[in-house]
Amino acid sequence: MPDAPSETYVIGVDFGTLSGRAVVVRVSDGTELGSAVHEYPHAVLTDALPDGTPLGHDWALQVPGDYVEVLQRAVPAAVRAAGIDPAQVVGIGTDFTACTMVPTLADGTPLSEVEGLASRPHAYVKLWKHHAAQPQADRINQLAAKRGEAWLPRYGGLISSEWEFAKGLQLLEEDPELYGRMDRWVEAADWIIWQLTGSYVRNACTAGYKGIRQDGHYPSPEFLAELNPAFAGFVADKLDQPIGQLGAAAGTLSAAAAGWTGLPEGIAVAVGNVDAHVTNAAAQALEPGQMVAIMGTSTCHVMNGAEIAEVPGMCGVVDGGIVEGLYGYEAGQSGVGDIFAHYLRYLGPEFTHEHLTELARRQRPGAHGLIALDWHSGNRSVLVDHELSGLLVGDTLATRPEDVYRALIEATAFGTRTIVETFNAAGVPVREFVAAGGLVKNTLLMQIYADVLRMPLSVIGSEQGPALGSAIHAAAAAGAYPDVRAAAAAMGRKQTAVYQPDPDAAAVYDELFAEYTKLHDYFGRGANKVMRNLRAIQRRVVA
Amino acid sequence: MPDAPSETYVIGVDFGTLSGRAVVVRVSDGTELGSAVHEYPHAVLTDALPDGTPLGHDWALQVPGDYVEVLQRAVPAAVRAAGIDPAQVVGIGTDFTACTMVPTLADGTPLSEVEGLASRPHAYVKLWKHHAAQPQADRINQLAAKRGEAWLPRYGGLISSEWEFAKGLQLLEEDPELYGRMDRWVEAADWIIWQLTGSYVRNACTAGYKGIRQDGHYPSPEFLAELNPAFAGFVADKLDQPIGQLGAAAGTLSAAAAGWTGLPEGIAVAVGNVDAHVTNAAAQALEPGQMVAIMGTSTCHVMNGAEIAEVPGMCGVVDGGIVEGLYGYEAGQSGVGDIFAHYLRYLGPEFTHEHLTELARRQRPGAHGLIALDWHSGNRSVLVDHELSGLLVGDTLATRPEDVYRALIEATAFGTRTIVETFNAAGVPVREFVAAGGLVKNTLLMQIYADVLRMPLSVIGSEQGPALGSAIHAAAAAGAYPDVRAAAAAMGRKQTAVYQPDPDAAAVYDELFAEYTKLHDYFGRGANKVMRNLRAIQRRVVA
Repeated sequence: MPDAPSETYVIGVDFGTLSGRAVVVRVSDGTELGSAVHEYPHAVLTDALPDGTPLGHDWALQVPGDYVEVLQRAVPAAVRAAGIDPAQVVGIGTDFTACTMVPTLADGTPLSEVEGLASRPHAYVKLWKHHAAQPQADRINQLAAKRGEAWLPRYGGLISSEWEFAKGLQLLEEDPELYGRMDRWVEAADWIIWQLTGSYVRNACTAGYKGIRQDGHYPSPEFLAELNPAFAGFVADKLDQPIGQLGAAAGTLSAAAAGWTGLPEGIAVAVGNVDAHVTNAAAQALEPGQMVAIMGTSTCHVMNGAEIAEVPGMCGVVDGGIVEGLYGYEAGQSGVGDIFAHYLRYLGPEFTHEHLTELARRQRPGAHGLIALDWHSGNRSVLVDHELSGLLVGDTLATRPEDVYRALIEATAFGTRTIVETFNAAGVPVREFVAAGGLVKNTLLMQIYADVLRMPLSVIGSEQGPALGSAIHAAAAAGAYPDVRAAAAAMGRKQTAVYQPDPDAAAVYDELFAEYTKLHDYFGRGANKVMRNLRAIQRRVVA
Repeated sequence: MPDAPSETYVIGVDFGTLSGRAVVVRVSDGTELGSAVHEYPHAVLTDALPDGTPLGHDWALQVPGDYVEVLQRAVPAAVRAAGIDPAQVVGIGTDFTACTMVPTLADGTPLSEVEGLASRPHAYVKLWKHHAAQPQADRINQLAAKRGEAWLPRYGGLISSEWEFAKGLQLLEEDPELYGRMDRWVEAADWIIWQLTGSYVRNACTAGYKGIRQDGHYPSPEFLAELNPAFAGFVADKLDQPIGQLGAAAGTLSAAAAGWTGLPEGIAVAVGNVDAHVTNAAAQALEPGQMVAIMGTSTCHVMNGAEIAEVPGMCGVVDGGIVEGLYGYEAGQSGVGDIFAHYLRYLGPEFTHEHLTELARRQRPGAHGLIALDWHSGNRSVLVDHELSGLLVGDTLATRPEDVYRALIEATAFGTRTIVETFNAAGVPVREFVAAGGLVKNTLLMQIYADVLRMPLSVIGSEQGPALGSAIHAAAAAGAYPDVRAAAAAMGRKQTAVYQPDPDAAAVYDELFAEYTKLHDYFGRGANKVMRNLRAIQRRVVA
């Protein structure tokens, strides 16, 4: 049955690592009516630029034109799939990977599109997982600790090589001429809004989490000059820009963008946002203590708090970082789903995720005799150490693939419990755990998390959490609701307490978690530096 | 070209876990002229007796008639394959798995062949890997430590559940009526000689290593009574028997055995021996400090010393345990080749041993960033703890099967280095390392061992080391040579220093061995009991 002519719609667009997804959502109740995906033609550049120019180790770049193609292809396709009249669309919202940075001219033109710069690696988008700025991040952390910079504890004591300052400093030091030609150093989350509206508004979320903006200030010119004299003006010259609050309108859809998308010129365009943080609105988890875990390749934990607190090893706390008026906390696990996929990669073809899950489901907790550390991609929270690596203990000749598979699932659950307990101990209690992301489909994994956490698990009611969250922000920006909280209440979806902890399983997991914690602290807090030493030896002998 | 009519020959028969192999060897120079294998029809009984009677956890039994079939089938087949005249055979020697025990009547009849006893599990041969006597072994060790029994340090401080006393005590306590009907508790190594000659001689090797015979004495009746009053007479009633030295004749071939084998009645039959210990003769490694490592599923290290010393964590030291006049030392690694096979078992079919070896060969030491502990079957030497388990550290999303495969090979090499260094530190220096067994074919593994040990590796010159060693003992027993050393000098084969350590690789392995040792001591010496705890939880939840 077609909607009444009076219904209005919003578009949410989720820009992921390899593709962008557009979803058409009904404003009145959040129903998702149609969606479309467009894969980035250039995907991720890790070995070479499109012209063959080679890239260094740990580089990860993207081509900004690929993002525009998502607007040109996926948005009209989603509208067609939804079967609605585009004239009834009242707003568009987006979310993006972060920290993903675009170097541009003053008008927003990416440097990679400037004539003569297409062969310069630093002219391209530095994707979130570009990790080649680690030396710069190390220097930033050392200097900030030495100077006692007040912002450092807001990031759990360490900022990441993925963030705006480390990547910007790398650009300066490796291609200073290009740095001189760069007018703006723009989060892709904001660059896409610039493309839609024609004006550049910096969103409060990435400015806070990735841009070290705290209490209205960035790191000082003195601090930056001590890093590198040529970096002193970085904030004033390249970064600073008026801040837009999440859920506000950054502007309206330009004629050019209306042409790309087939949407009406002049509709509201929400301030840019981040894929993880926008999900809380979709999961109706905006109140203090409602932790949303977006569980996929990696896991991001996002939660509001009423007060500001310093949580050891968190990624960051930002005023208005999730929703205006509350402090948004973020933590993360570097590897989750990708650890399971890695384990399957070389097994015989009969060992699919589905098959191993069914075999693992028949086991009682503790029956496999294994414990793993989930650090195959390092540890983001609470250790903040990317030199760490995976560990498996307990392997015997009787160990089967489903045993290891279950142990890896449990390891990621133990990692989550470590984060939850750290928040609780820091005075930011986790009151509800809401699962989102691709892994919610694995009911065994969900039950294990409930048992390990000794908490009921709620589950987001949408398979496209970020895109739905972006649509909710679009509805708020369009004025269809007074604010994001009201829009989320009407349009978001959550199933409460779907998984209940089993007391017997939880008791065994308490024992195993004690063993996990002992290993976690031994290998993660410096008593045995074998993981770090192995990486150092590896780098030396491979070089 | 056929041999001259004056040539004489000996037969070596190697009784393994699943089959027996006979080899025909020329006395003058040790040339192997023909061989044949016969698989035991009943293989290993782990789940049930032949009549379906179920067996408990960790049981492993065999059927003694299977051993006789080897004499009936493999010996004549080997003679045919060699193309010799059986009349020119002057002796036969055998080696056996150990400790493998046959309960018999006074005439050597196995209890399993006595009418009415075929359904009694304890009436069968307890194979070396029957591990159900662990509770008895624990009690023996605790009591021996409490009483300060002088023989305990001769076994590195712990005796094994695999040995004669633990298995015998289990039989007494679980089937006392059968224990009463048992006249003799016989090593299979000696039982097969009894079958060949008609007389029972106990060999010095198993009596010492497996039978706790030290300086001519067994554990005292007082000690045994304290274990169990009904066990007080175990030595006198069931075990004690005249000792035969290795390489001596136990007797001559009986008419019945001549009928089975097709060999001349009256030829020399050597005293029984053990597969590992007989290999030193084949490898020309009988001098003090020449360590032979028989590397296959597991590894056994066998070496003579001029003096007696207490080596922590060794399996045992026995006067004349390898050759008369020297002290024979034994150590072992519970898992080696079976760890590699376990790792391959669930991988895709493209990952064969050969393919992974070739891929791993291209790597530099340290390039994979991994370290493993080789304890998938526990640790025999030097920790003597079967509750330990495997560990892998350093796994990342970039880790490939050849990386893990190489790390597992290296882990077993580090385990060997730990044993070698323990012998060196105890005043029993290892002067030459001679590799034998199926793994010598893997040239990558051999080179890694040379690099890790920082020692040249010699290699046995026969693919049938135990059978050749048995044949050498047969030649000595037949009087063709004055003693085993002279026979080994003429008939054994060794390639000296085939693999030389690479200094660059050895330097990296020194670093990795330091990391291995730190993990070895942390998990193996009680600082972190996670492996033991995981097994305890596993047993509890599975029960």
